[in-house]
Amino acid sequence: MKINQKIKKVAFIGMGLINSSLARDLKIKKFYLSSSAYSRRLSTINKIKKLKLVDFASSNIEKIIKEADIIIVGIPVAAYQEVFKKICNNIKPGAIITDVGSVKKEVINSVKKYIPKNIDFVPGHPIAGTENSGPESGFAGLFKNGWCILTPNKNTSKNSVKIIKYMWQLVGMKVDIMDSNYHDEVLAITSHIPHIIAYSIVGTITNLQTTIKKEVIKYAASGFRDFTRIAASDPIMWRDIILYNRQSILKMLNLFKKDLSKLEHAIENNDDKFLLNLFTKTRKIRKEIIK
Amino acid sequence: MKINQKIKKVAFIGMGLINSSLARDLKIKKFYLSSSAYSRRLSTINKIKKLKLVDFASSNIEKIIKEADIIIVGIPVAAYQEVFKKICNNIKPGAIITDVGSVKKEVINSVKKYIPKNIDFVPGHPIAGTENSGPESGFAGLFKNGWCILTPNKNTSKNSVKIIKYMWQLVGMKVDIMDSNYHDEVLAITSHIPHIIAYSIVGTITNLQTTIKKEVIKYAASGFRDFTRIAASDPIMWRDIILYNRQSILKMLNLFKKDLSKLEHAIENNDDKFLLNLFTKTRKIRKEIIK
Repeated sequence: MKINQKIKKVAFIGMGLINSSLARDLKIKKFYLSSSAYSRRLSTINKIKKLKLVDFASSNIEKIIKEADIIIVGIPVAAYQEVFKKICNNIKPGAIITDVGSVKKEVINSVKKYIPKNIDFVPGHPIAGTENSGPESGFAGLFKNGWCILTPNKNTSKNSVKIIKYMWQLVGMKVDIMDSNYHDEVLAITSHIPHIIAYSIVGTITNLQTTIKKEVIKYAASGFRDFTRIAASDPIMWRDIILYNRQSILKMLNLFKKDLSKLEHAIENNDDKFLLNLFTKTRKIRKEIIK
Repeated sequence: MKINQKIKKVAFIGMGLINSSLARDLKIKKFYLSSSAYSRRLSTINKIKKLKLVDFASSNIEKIIKEADIIIVGIPVAAYQEVFKKICNNIKPGAIITDVGSVKKEVINSVKKYIPKNIDFVPGHPIAGTENSGPESGFAGLFKNGWCILTPNKNTSKNSVKIIKYMWQLVGMKVDIMDSNYHDEVLAITSHIPHIIAYSIVGTITNLQTTIKKEVIKYAASGFRDFTRIAASDPIMWRDIILYNRQSILKMLNLFKKDLSKLEHAIENNDDKFLLNLFTKTRKIRKEIIK
Protein backbone atom coordinates (compact mmCIF):
# COMPACT_ATOMS: atom_id res chain seq x y z
CA MET A 1 0.00 0.00 0.00
CA LYS A 2 1.22 3.47 -0.74
CA ILE A 3 0.13 6.78 0.67
CA ASN A 4 -2.17 8.71 -1.70
CA GLN A 5 -2.92 5.50 -3.54
CA LYS A 6 -6.61 4.59 -3.39
CA ILE A 7 -7.23 2.02 -0.65
CA LYS A 8 -9.13 -0.99 -1.97
CA LYS A 9 -11.04 -1.98 1.14
CA VAL A 10 -11.54 -0.55 4.61
CA ALA A 11 -13.20 -2.65 7.33
CA PHE A 12 -14.77 -0.99 10.35
CA ILE A 13 -15.03 -3.15 13.48
CA GLY A 14 -17.79 -1.54 15.51
CA MET A 15 -19.86 1.43 14.37
CA GLY A 16 -20.23 3.75 17.34
CA LEU A 17 -19.89 7.52 17.33
CA ILE A 18 -16.24 7.56 16.23
CA ASN A 19 -16.17 4.83 13.56
CA SER A 20 -19.49 5.91 12.07
CA SER A 21 -18.29 9.52 11.85
CA LEU A 22 -15.04 8.37 10.26
CA ALA A 23 -16.97 6.19 7.78
CA ARG A 24 -19.05 9.21 6.79
CA ASP A 25 -15.98 11.42 6.33
CA LEU A 26 -13.87 8.85 4.46
CA LYS A 27 -16.76 8.13 2.11
CA ILE A 28 -17.03 11.83 1.25
CA LYS A 29 -13.26 12.00 0.74
CA LYS A 30 -13.33 8.85 -1.46
CA PHE A 31 -10.51 7.31 0.61
CA TYR A 32 -11.39 3.76 -0.43
CA LEU A 33 -12.98 1.73 -3.21
CA SER A 34 -15.10 -0.41 -0.92
CA SER A 35 -15.99 -0.59 2.76
CA SER A 36 -17.49 -2.99 5.26
CA ALA A 37 -18.62 -2.86 8.87
CA TYR A 38 -18.94 -5.41 11.63
CA SER A 39 -21.30 -5.24 14.55
CA ARG A 40 -22.34 -7.88 17.06
CA ARG A 41 -25.91 -6.68 17.08
CA LEU A 42 -28.47 -7.11 14.32
CA SER A 43 -30.19 -3.87 15.34
CA THR A 44 -26.92 -1.97 14.79
CA ILE A 45 -26.35 -3.67 11.44
CA ASN A 46 -29.80 -2.57 10.36
CA LYS A 47 -29.02 1.02 11.36
CA ILE A 48 -25.71 0.91 9.44
CA LYS A 49 -27.51 -0.34 6.34
CA LYS A 50 -30.27 2.24 6.64
CA LEU A 51 -27.73 5.05 7.02
CA LYS A 52 -25.71 3.64 4.07
CA LEU A 53 -22.49 4.09 6.03
CA VAL A 54 -20.63 1.26 4.24
CA ASP A 55 -21.08 -1.05 1.25
CA PHE A 56 -21.52 -4.17 3.34
CA ALA A 57 -22.45 -4.76 6.99
CA SER A 58 -22.60 -8.07 8.84
CA SER A 59 -22.12 -9.81 12.19
CA ASN A 60 -19.77 -12.26 10.48
CA ILE A 61 -16.41 -10.72 11.32
CA GLU A 62 -14.36 -13.00 9.04
CA LYS A 63 -16.37 -11.86 6.01
CA ILE A 64 -16.03 -8.22 7.03
CA ILE A 65 -12.23 -8.24 7.28
CA LYS A 66 -11.68 -10.48 4.25
CA GLU A 67 -9.32 -8.75 1.78
CA ALA A 68 -9.41 -5.53 3.84
CA ASP A 69 -6.32 -3.31 3.53
CA ILE A 70 -7.12 -1.29 6.62
CA ILE A 71 -9.05 -2.56 9.62
CA ILE A 72 -10.28 0.13 12.02
CA VAL A 73 -11.25 -1.15 15.46
CA GLY A 74 -13.79 1.05 17.23
CA ILE A 75 -15.28 -0.95 20.10
CA PRO A 76 -15.05 -0.79 23.92
CA VAL A 77 -11.45 -1.67 24.79
CA ALA A 78 -12.37 -4.66 26.97
CA ALA A 79 -13.73 -6.33 23.82
CA TYR A 80 -10.46 -5.98 21.86
CA GLN A 81 -8.92 -9.31 22.89
CA GLU A 82 -11.87 -11.36 21.72
CA VAL A 83 -11.98 -9.54 18.37
CA PHE A 84 -8.23 -9.68 17.71
CA LYS A 85 -8.26 -13.40 18.54
CA LYS A 86 -11.09 -13.98 16.05
CA ILE A 87 -9.56 -12.05 13.17
CA CYS A 88 -5.84 -12.86 13.54
CA ASN A 89 -5.89 -15.82 11.18
CA ASN A 90 -7.93 -14.12 8.47
CA ILE A 91 -6.17 -10.82 7.98
CA LYS A 92 -4.76 -10.20 4.52
CA PRO A 93 -0.95 -10.13 4.64
CA GLY A 94 0.37 -6.56 4.58
CA ALA A 95 -2.88 -5.10 5.94
CA ILE A 96 -2.84 -2.43 8.64
CA ILE A 97 -4.86 -2.62 11.83
CA THR A 98 -5.58 0.60 13.67
CA ASP A 99 -7.99 1.58 16.42
CA VAL A 100 -9.71 4.61 17.93
CA GLY A 101 -9.58 3.75 21.64
CA SER A 102 -9.02 6.35 24.35
CA VAL A 103 -6.51 4.27 26.29
CA LYS A 104 -3.46 2.65 24.78
CA LYS A 105 -0.68 0.94 26.78
CA GLU A 106 -2.49 -1.89 28.54
CA VAL A 107 -4.79 -2.41 25.57
CA ILE A 108 -1.87 -2.78 23.16
CA ASN A 109 -0.21 -5.25 25.54
CA SER A 110 -3.39 -7.31 25.78
CA VAL A 111 -3.70 -7.85 22.01
CA LYS A 112 -0.13 -7.91 20.69
CA LYS A 113 0.11 -11.70 20.92
CA TYR A 114 -2.70 -12.01 18.37
CA ILE A 115 -1.16 -9.81 15.69
CA PRO A 116 0.54 -11.76 12.88
CA LYS A 117 4.13 -10.80 11.99
CA ASN A 118 3.22 -9.49 8.52
CA ILE A 119 0.58 -7.12 9.90
CA ASP A 120 1.22 -3.64 11.31
CA PHE A 121 -0.81 -2.41 14.25
CA VAL A 122 -0.87 1.40 14.40
CA PRO A 123 -2.80 2.28 17.57
CA GLY A 124 -4.64 5.58 17.29
CA HIS A 125 -6.74 7.92 19.36
CA PRO A 126 -8.70 10.68 17.64
CA ILE A 127 -9.51 13.15 20.43
CA ALA A 128 -13.08 13.94 19.46
CA GLY A 129 -16.57 12.98 20.50
CA THR A 130 -19.86 13.94 22.03
CA GLU A 131 -21.80 12.36 24.88
CA ASN A 132 -23.91 10.41 22.37
CA SER A 133 -23.24 6.91 21.11
CA GLY A 134 -24.29 4.56 18.32
CA PRO A 135 -24.05 4.80 14.50
CA GLU A 136 -26.91 7.32 14.30
CA SER A 137 -25.05 9.83 16.51
CA GLY A 138 -22.01 10.08 14.22
CA PHE A 139 -21.61 12.92 11.74
CA ALA A 140 -19.25 14.13 9.04
CA GLY A 141 -16.91 16.85 10.29
CA LEU A 142 -16.59 15.54 13.86
CA PHE A 143 -12.79 15.38 13.61
CA LYS A 144 -12.16 18.76 12.03
CA ASN A 145 -9.31 20.68 13.68
CA GLY A 146 -8.90 18.12 16.48
CA TRP A 147 -5.80 16.16 17.43
CA CYS A 148 -5.25 12.49 16.71
CA ILE A 149 -2.51 10.72 18.64
CA LEU A 150 -0.84 7.62 17.16
CA THR A 151 1.21 5.34 19.40
CA PRO A 152 3.13 2.90 17.16
CA ASN A 153 6.11 1.06 18.63
CA LYS A 154 9.62 1.08 17.19
CA ASN A 155 8.95 -2.01 15.06
CA THR A 156 5.92 -0.56 13.25
CA SER A 157 6.73 0.21 9.61
CA LYS A 158 7.02 3.93 8.87
CA ASN A 159 4.88 3.46 5.77
CA SER A 160 1.94 2.07 7.77
CA VAL A 161 2.14 4.97 10.21
CA LYS A 162 2.21 7.37 7.25
CA ILE A 163 -0.94 5.87 5.75
CA ILE A 164 -2.92 6.06 9.02
CA LYS A 165 -1.61 9.58 9.60
CA TYR A 166 -2.76 10.55 6.11
CA MET A 167 -6.21 9.06 6.77
CA TRP A 168 -6.75 11.24 9.85
CA GLN A 169 -5.37 14.32 8.14
CA LEU A 170 -7.81 13.70 5.31
CA VAL A 171 -10.73 14.09 7.75
CA GLY A 172 -9.26 17.29 9.20
CA MET A 173 -7.15 16.16 12.15
CA LYS A 174 -3.69 17.23 13.24
CA VAL A 175 -1.65 14.12 14.03
CA ASP A 176 0.97 13.55 16.74
CA ILE A 177 3.07 10.46 17.41
CA MET A 178 3.50 9.59 21.09
CA ASP A 179 4.63 6.86 23.44
CA SER A 180 1.59 4.85 24.57
CA ASN A 181 2.42 5.21 28.25
CA TYR A 182 2.79 8.97 28.01
CA HIS A 183 -0.46 9.15 26.02
CA ASP A 184 -2.27 7.41 28.87
CA GLU A 185 -0.84 9.78 31.47
CA VAL A 186 -1.80 12.88 29.50
CA LEU A 187 -5.30 11.57 28.76
CA ALA A 188 -5.81 10.57 32.40
CA ILE A 189 -5.53 14.27 33.19
CA THR A 190 -7.30 15.86 30.21
CA SER A 191 -10.15 13.43 29.89
CA HIS A 192 -10.36 10.42 32.23
CA ILE A 193 -10.18 12.29 35.57
CA PRO A 194 -12.71 14.93 34.45
CA HIS A 195 -15.06 12.10 33.47
CA ILE A 196 -14.58 10.32 36.80
CA ILE A 197 -15.26 13.52 38.72
CA ALA A 198 -18.33 14.34 36.65
CA TYR A 199 -19.67 10.79 37.01
CA SER A 200 -19.08 10.99 40.75
CA ILE A 201 -20.75 14.36 41.38
CA VAL A 202 -23.73 13.55 39.17
CA GLY A 203 -23.93 10.24 41.05
CA THR A 204 -24.01 12.13 44.35
CA ILE A 205 -26.97 14.11 43.06
CA THR A 206 -28.90 11.04 41.95
CA ASN A 207 -28.70 9.86 45.57
CA LEU A 208 -30.27 13.03 46.99
CA GLN A 209 -33.84 13.05 48.22
CA THR A 210 -36.48 13.55 45.56
CA THR A 211 -37.55 17.12 46.47
CA ILE A 212 -34.17 18.78 46.15
CA LYS A 213 -33.23 16.59 43.16
CA LYS A 214 -36.18 18.11 41.31
CA GLU A 215 -34.91 21.64 41.99
CA VAL A 216 -31.37 20.68 41.01
CA ILE A 217 -32.59 19.48 37.63
CA LYS A 218 -34.76 22.56 37.20
CA TYR A 219 -32.01 25.08 37.99
CA ALA A 220 -29.09 23.16 36.49
CA ALA A 221 -27.55 26.19 34.84
CA SER A 222 -23.84 26.83 34.69
CA GLY A 223 -21.61 24.25 36.31
CA PHE A 224 -23.80 21.26 36.93
CA ARG A 225 -25.18 21.18 33.38
CA ASP A 226 -21.66 20.72 31.96
CA PHE A 227 -21.01 17.91 34.43
CA THR A 228 -24.18 16.08 33.42
CA ARG A 229 -23.15 16.28 29.77
CA ILE A 230 -19.81 14.63 30.55
CA ALA A 231 -21.49 12.09 32.86
CA ALA A 232 -23.88 11.12 30.05
CA SER A 233 -21.02 9.53 28.07
CA ASP A 234 -21.28 5.90 27.01
CA PRO A 235 -21.18 3.75 30.20
CA ILE A 236 -19.52 0.63 28.78
CA MET A 237 -16.89 2.56 26.86
CA TRP A 238 -15.99 4.57 29.96
CA ARG A 239 -16.00 1.61 32.34
CA ASP A 240 -13.36 0.05 30.08
CA ILE A 241 -11.26 3.19 29.59
CA ILE A 242 -11.03 3.71 33.32
CA LEU A 243 -10.18 0.14 34.22
CA TYR A 244 -7.57 -0.06 31.43
CA ASN A 245 -5.89 3.15 32.60
CA ARG A 246 -6.17 2.49 36.33
CA GLN A 247 -2.57 3.25 37.23
CA SER A 248 -2.35 6.74 35.74
CA ILE A 249 -5.88 7.54 36.88
CA LEU A 250 -5.35 6.51 40.51
CA LYS A 251 -2.11 8.51 40.63
CA MET A 252 -3.83 11.68 39.37
CA LEU A 253 -6.94 11.09 41.48
CA ASN A 254 -4.73 11.04 44.53
CA LEU A 255 -3.22 14.42 43.62
CA PHE A 256 -6.69 15.84 42.99
CA LYS A 257 -8.06 14.57 46.31
CA LYS A 258 -5.18 16.18 48.20
CA ASP A 259 -5.77 19.52 46.47
CA LEU A 260 -9.51 19.32 47.09
CA SER A 261 -8.87 18.73 50.79
CA LYS A 262 -6.61 21.79 50.90
CA LEU A 263 -9.37 23.86 49.30
CA GLU A 264 -11.94 22.44 51.70
CA HIS A 265 -9.67 23.38 54.58
CA ALA A 266 -9.35 26.92 53.23
CA ILE A 267 -13.16 27.23 53.02
CA GLU A 268 -13.53 25.96 56.59
CA ASN A 269 -11.00 28.52 57.79
CA ASN A 270 -12.44 31.40 55.78
CA ASP A 271 -9.08 31.72 54.04
CA ASP A 272 -10.03 34.31 51.42
CA LYS A 273 -6.42 34.72 50.25
CA PHE A 274 -6.04 31.03 49.41
CA LEU A 275 -9.27 31.08 47.41
CA LEU A 276 -8.50 34.26 45.50
CA ASN A 277 -5.00 33.05 44.70
CA LEU A 278 -6.22 29.68 43.37
CA PHE A 279 -9.11 31.17 41.37
CA THR A 280 -6.80 33.74 39.77
CA LYS A 281 -4.27 31.06 38.79
CA THR A 282 -6.90 28.81 37.19
CA ARG A 283 -8.38 31.65 35.15
CA LYS A 284 -5.04 32.05 33.35
CA ILE A 285 -4.89 28.48 32.04
CA ARG A 286 -8.18 29.02 30.17
CA LYS A 287 -6.58 31.77 28.12
CA GLU A 288 -3.85 29.38 26.98
CA ILE A 289 -6.43 26.82 25.91
CA ILE A 290 -8.70 29.08 23.90
CA LYS A 291 -5.92 31.09 22.26
CA MET B 1 -44.96 52.37 42.08
CA LYS B 2 -47.27 50.14 40.16
CA ILE B 3 -46.54 47.19 37.97
CA ASN B 4 -46.65 48.07 34.24
CA GLN B 5 -46.27 51.72 35.12
CA LYS B 6 -43.08 53.23 33.66
CA ILE B 7 -40.32 53.32 36.29
CA LYS B 8 -38.81 56.80 36.61
CA LYS B 9 -35.28 55.90 37.57
CA VAL B 10 -33.25 52.71 37.91
CA ALA B 11 -29.84 52.77 39.59
CA PHE B 12 -27.33 50.01 38.94
CA ILE B 13 -24.74 49.46 41.67
CA GLY B 14 -21.86 47.72 39.91
CA MET B 15 -21.74 47.01 36.17
CA GLY B 16 -20.36 43.51 35.75
CA LEU B 17 -21.62 40.82 33.40
CA ILE B 18 -25.10 40.57 34.98
CA ASN B 19 -25.95 44.22 35.65
CA SER B 20 -24.55 45.38 32.32
CA SER B 21 -26.58 42.71 30.47
CA LEU B 22 -29.69 43.71 32.42
CA ALA B 23 -29.07 47.39 31.64
CA ARG B 24 -28.85 46.55 27.93
CA ASP B 25 -32.08 44.51 28.03
CA LEU B 26 -34.09 46.97 30.15
CA LYS B 27 -33.05 49.83 27.88
CA ILE B 28 -34.33 47.94 24.83
CA LYS B 29 -37.58 47.14 26.68
CA LYS B 30 -37.96 50.81 27.76
CA PHE B 31 -38.49 49.71 31.37
CA TYR B 32 -37.46 53.11 32.81
CA LEU B 33 -37.32 56.80 31.97
CA SER B 34 -33.77 57.28 33.24
CA SER B 35 -30.90 55.17 34.51
CA SER B 36 -27.65 55.55 36.38
CA ALA B 37 -24.72 53.32 37.29
CA TYR B 38 -22.18 53.33 40.08
CA SER B 39 -18.71 51.84 39.91
CA ARG B 40 -15.76 52.25 42.25
CA ARG B 41 -13.31 52.37 39.39
CA LEU B 42 -12.84 55.21 36.93
CA SER B 43 -11.79 52.75 34.19
CA THR B 44 -15.14 50.94 34.55
CA ILE B 45 -17.06 54.22 34.53
CA ASN B 46 -15.34 55.13 31.27
CA LYS B 47 -16.32 51.77 29.76
CA ILE B 48 -19.95 52.25 30.88
CA LYS B 49 -20.04 55.68 29.26
CA LYS B 50 -18.43 54.45 26.05
CA LEU B 51 -20.93 51.58 25.82
CA LYS B 52 -23.83 53.99 26.60
CA LEU B 53 -25.27 51.49 29.06
CA VAL B 54 -26.98 54.16 31.22
CA ASP B 55 -27.74 57.87 31.17
CA PHE B 56 -25.36 58.73 33.97
CA ALA B 57 -22.37 56.92 35.48
CA SER B 58 -20.28 57.99 38.46
CA SER B 59 -18.22 56.81 41.44
CA ASN B 60 -20.38 59.01 43.70
CA ILE B 61 -22.89 56.48 44.98
CA GLU B 62 -25.17 59.04 46.68
CA LYS B 63 -25.68 60.83 43.37
CA ILE B 64 -26.34 57.57 41.56
CA ILE B 65 -29.10 56.38 43.90
CA LYS B 66 -30.71 59.82 44.35
CA GLU B 67 -34.41 59.66 43.43
CA ALA B 68 -34.01 56.09 42.14
CA ASP B 69 -37.17 53.95 42.30
CA ILE B 70 -35.30 50.69 41.88
CA ILE B 71 -31.72 50.04 43.00
CA ILE B 72 -30.10 46.92 41.55
CA VAL B 73 -27.02 45.73 43.43
CA GLY B 74 -24.64 43.70 41.26
CA ILE B 75 -21.29 43.55 43.07
CA PRO B 76 -19.30 40.80 44.84
CA VAL B 77 -21.33 39.86 47.93
CA ALA B 78 -18.54 40.70 50.38
CA ALA B 79 -18.87 44.32 49.29
CA TYR B 80 -22.63 44.54 50.06
CA GLN B 81 -22.31 45.73 53.68
CA GLU B 82 -20.18 48.72 52.81
CA VAL B 83 -22.51 49.74 49.99
CA PHE B 84 -25.75 49.27 51.96
CA LYS B 85 -24.25 51.28 54.83
CA LYS B 86 -23.38 54.12 52.44
CA ILE B 87 -26.72 54.30 50.69
CA CYS B 88 -29.15 53.62 53.56
CA ASN B 89 -29.68 57.26 54.47
CA ASN B 90 -30.15 58.46 50.91
CA ILE B 91 -32.67 56.05 49.48
CA LYS B 92 -35.92 57.59 48.29
CA PRO B 93 -38.81 56.42 50.54
CA GLY B 94 -40.80 53.67 48.86
CA ALA B 95 -37.93 52.64 46.60
CA ILE B 96 -37.10 48.97 46.07
CA ILE B 97 -33.64 47.46 46.48
CA THR B 98 -32.90 44.22 44.72
CA ASP B 99 -29.69 42.34 43.92
CA VAL B 100 -28.32 39.70 41.56
CA GLY B 101 -26.03 37.77 43.93
CA SER B 102 -25.59 33.98 43.72
CA VAL B 103 -25.84 33.44 47.48
CA LYS B 104 -28.64 34.75 49.64
CA LYS B 105 -29.14 33.84 53.31
CA GLU B 106 -25.96 35.08 54.99
CA VAL B 107 -25.78 38.07 52.63
CA ILE B 108 -29.33 39.15 53.50
CA ASN B 109 -28.55 38.80 57.20
CA SER B 110 -25.43 40.91 56.83
CA VAL B 111 -27.23 43.90 55.31
CA LYS B 112 -30.72 43.88 56.83
CA LYS B 113 -29.77 46.26 59.63
CA TYR B 114 -28.99 48.96 57.05
CA ILE B 115 -32.30 48.83 55.23
CA PRO B 116 -34.73 51.60 56.25
CA LYS B 117 -38.26 50.58 57.29
CA ASN B 118 -39.93 52.27 54.31
CA ILE B 119 -37.74 50.43 51.79
CA ASP B 120 -38.34 46.91 50.46
CA PHE B 121 -35.41 44.62 49.79
CA VAL B 122 -36.30 41.92 47.25
CA PRO B 123 -33.22 39.69 46.98
CA GLY B 124 -32.85 38.11 43.56
CA HIS B 125 -30.67 35.65 41.72
CA PRO B 126 -30.91 35.45 37.92
CA ILE B 127 -29.33 32.09 37.05
CA ALA B 128 -27.37 33.16 34.01
CA GLY B 129 -23.83 34.04 33.11
CA THR B 130 -20.67 33.23 31.25
CA GLU B 131 -17.10 32.91 32.51
CA ASN B 132 -16.40 36.50 31.44
CA SER B 133 -16.70 39.59 33.60
CA GLY B 134 -16.88 43.37 33.28
CA PRO B 135 -19.36 45.71 31.51
CA GLU B 136 -17.95 44.88 28.06
CA SER B 137 -18.77 41.18 28.47
CA GLY B 138 -22.51 41.74 29.02
CA PHE B 139 -25.01 41.34 26.21
CA ALA B 140 -28.74 41.70 25.53
CA GLY B 141 -30.52 38.36 25.62
CA LEU B 142 -28.35 36.75 28.33
CA PHE B 143 -31.38 36.02 30.53
CA LYS B 144 -33.69 34.60 27.90
CA ASN B 145 -35.46 31.39 29.05
CA GLY B 146 -33.44 31.17 32.27
CA TRP B 147 -34.75 31.04 35.83
CA CYS B 148 -34.60 33.91 38.29
CA ILE B 149 -35.10 33.10 41.96
CA LEU B 150 -36.41 35.78 44.34
CA THR B 151 -36.06 35.28 48.11
CA PRO B 152 -38.17 37.95 49.83
CA ASN B 153 -39.12 37.43 53.46
CA LYS B 154 -42.68 37.45 54.84
CA ASN B 155 -42.55 41.21 55.57
CA THR B 156 -41.65 42.23 52.01
CA SER B 157 -44.59 43.93 50.30
CA LYS B 158 -46.27 41.80 47.64
CA ASN B 159 -46.29 44.77 45.28
CA SER B 160 -42.50 45.18 45.43
CA VAL B 161 -42.02 41.49 44.72
CA LYS B 162 -44.43 41.81 41.78
CA ILE B 163 -42.47 44.70 40.27
CA ILE B 164 -39.10 42.89 40.49
CA LYS B 165 -40.73 39.72 39.13
CA TYR B 166 -42.14 41.73 36.22
CA MET B 167 -38.69 43.23 35.52
CA TRP B 168 -37.08 39.79 35.14
CA GLN B 169 -39.98 38.46 33.09
CA LEU B 170 -39.58 41.45 30.79
CA VAL B 171 -36.02 40.31 29.95
CA GLY B 172 -37.16 36.74 29.31
CA MET B 173 -36.77 34.97 32.63
CA LYS B 174 -39.08 32.57 34.42
CA VAL B 175 -39.36 33.63 38.06
CA ASP B 176 -39.63 31.48 41.20
CA ILE B 177 -40.02 32.60 44.82
CA MET B 178 -37.99 30.60 47.33
CA ASP B 179 -36.76 30.59 50.91
CA SER B 180 -33.22 32.04 51.01
CA ASN B 181 -31.82 29.09 52.93
CA TYR B 182 -33.24 26.55 50.50
CA HIS B 183 -31.96 28.63 47.58
CA ASP B 184 -28.44 28.40 48.99
CA GLU B 185 -28.67 24.63 49.42
CA VAL B 186 -29.91 24.09 45.87
CA LEU B 187 -27.31 26.42 44.38
CA ALA B 188 -24.52 24.80 46.42
CA ILE B 189 -25.28 21.65 44.44
CA THR B 190 -26.08 23.03 40.99
CA SER B 191 -23.41 25.68 40.82
CA HIS B 192 -21.08 26.23 43.80
CA ILE B 193 -19.78 22.66 44.17
CA PRO B 194 -19.19 22.24 40.41
CA HIS B 195 -17.21 25.50 40.51
CA ILE B 196 -15.16 24.36 43.51
CA ILE B 197 -14.37 21.04 41.84
CA ALA B 198 -13.43 22.70 38.56
CA TYR B 199 -11.23 25.25 40.33
CA SER B 200 -9.57 22.43 42.26
CA ILE B 201 -8.82 20.14 39.32
CA VAL B 202 -7.59 22.99 37.12
CA GLY B 203 -5.46 24.06 40.09
CA THR B 204 -3.99 20.55 40.28
CA ILE B 205 -3.00 20.86 36.64
CA THR B 206 -1.32 24.24 37.08
CA ASN B 207 0.94 22.55 39.65
CA LEU B 208 2.11 19.83 37.25
CA GLN B 209 5.56 19.94 35.73
CA THR B 210 5.88 22.10 32.63
CA THR B 211 6.29 19.33 30.02
CA ILE B 212 3.06 17.48 30.72
CA LYS B 213 1.19 20.76 31.38
CA LYS B 214 1.96 21.76 27.79
CA GLU B 215 0.44 18.52 26.47
CA VAL B 216 -2.59 18.90 28.74
CA ILE B 217 -3.30 22.33 27.28
CA LYS B 218 -2.71 21.07 23.75
CA TYR B 219 -5.03 18.06 24.02
CA ALA B 220 -7.65 19.61 26.32
CA ALA B 221 -10.60 18.26 24.41
CA SER B 222 -13.69 16.88 26.06
CA GLY B 223 -13.77 16.97 29.83
CA PHE B 224 -10.92 19.22 30.84
CA ARG B 225 -11.92 22.03 28.49
CA ASP B 226 -15.33 22.34 30.19
CA PHE B 227 -13.63 22.45 33.58
CA THR B 228 -11.30 25.24 32.51
CA ARG B 229 -14.27 27.29 31.31
CA ILE B 230 -15.92 27.00 34.72
CA ALA B 231 -12.62 27.64 36.50
CA ALA B 232 -12.15 30.85 34.48
CA SER B 233 -15.07 32.51 36.30
CA ASP B 234 -14.51 35.79 38.12
CA PRO B 235 -12.16 35.08 41.07
CA ILE B 236 -13.42 37.76 43.51
CA MET B 237 -17.07 37.02 42.83
CA TRP B 238 -16.51 33.30 43.44
CA ARG B 239 -14.33 33.74 46.50
CA ASP B 240 -17.24 35.63 48.05
CA ILE B 241 -19.98 33.23 46.93
CA ILE B 242 -18.13 30.30 48.43
CA LEU B 243 -17.31 31.92 51.74
CA TYR B 244 -20.87 33.24 52.12
CA ASN B 245 -22.34 29.80 51.45
CA ARG B 246 -19.78 27.82 53.45
CA GLN B 247 -22.22 25.74 55.45
CA SER B 248 -24.20 24.27 52.55
CA ILE B 249 -21.05 23.88 50.47
CA LEU B 250 -19.07 22.01 53.14
CA LYS B 251 -22.03 19.70 53.73
CA MET B 252 -22.29 18.81 50.03
CA LEU B 253 -18.51 18.62 49.57
CA ASN B 254 -18.42 16.02 52.30
CA LEU B 255 -21.03 13.89 50.48
CA PHE B 256 -19.11 14.26 47.22
CA LYS B 257 -15.78 13.27 48.78
CA LYS B 258 -17.33 10.14 50.24
CA ASP B 259 -18.78 9.15 46.86
CA LEU B 260 -15.48 9.86 45.10
CA SER B 261 -13.67 7.59 47.57
CA LYS B 262 -16.17 4.83 46.87
CA LEU B 263 -15.54 5.21 43.13
CA GLU B 264 -11.77 5.25 43.69
CA HIS B 265 -12.10 2.07 45.71
CA ALA B 266 -14.08 0.44 42.88
CA ILE B 267 -11.36 1.40 40.37
CA GLU B 268 -8.66 -0.04 42.64
CA ASN B 269 -10.61 -3.28 42.93
CA ASN B 270 -11.44 -3.52 39.23
CA ASP B 271 -15.11 -3.48 40.19
CA ASP B 272 -16.61 -3.24 36.69
CA LYS B 273 -20.17 -3.71 37.96
CA PHE B 274 -19.95 -0.69 40.29
CA LEU B 275 -18.65 1.49 37.47
CA LEU B 276 -21.20 0.37 34.90
CA ASN B 277 -24.04 0.82 37.39
CA LEU B 278 -22.96 4.36 38.34
CA PHE B 279 -22.31 5.45 34.74
CA THR B 280 -25.70 4.14 33.61
CA LYS B 281 -27.49 5.96 36.44
CA THR B 282 -25.80 9.30 35.69
CA ARG B 283 -26.63 9.11 31.99
CA LYS B 284 -30.33 9.14 32.85
CA ILE B 285 -30.25 12.45 34.73
CA ARG B 286 -28.96 14.21 31.60
CA LYS B 287 -32.12 13.28 29.75
CA GLU B 288 -34.25 14.94 32.44
CA ILE B 289 -32.22 18.14 32.16
CA ILE B 290 -32.27 18.52 28.40
CA LYS B 291 -35.89 17.44 27.93
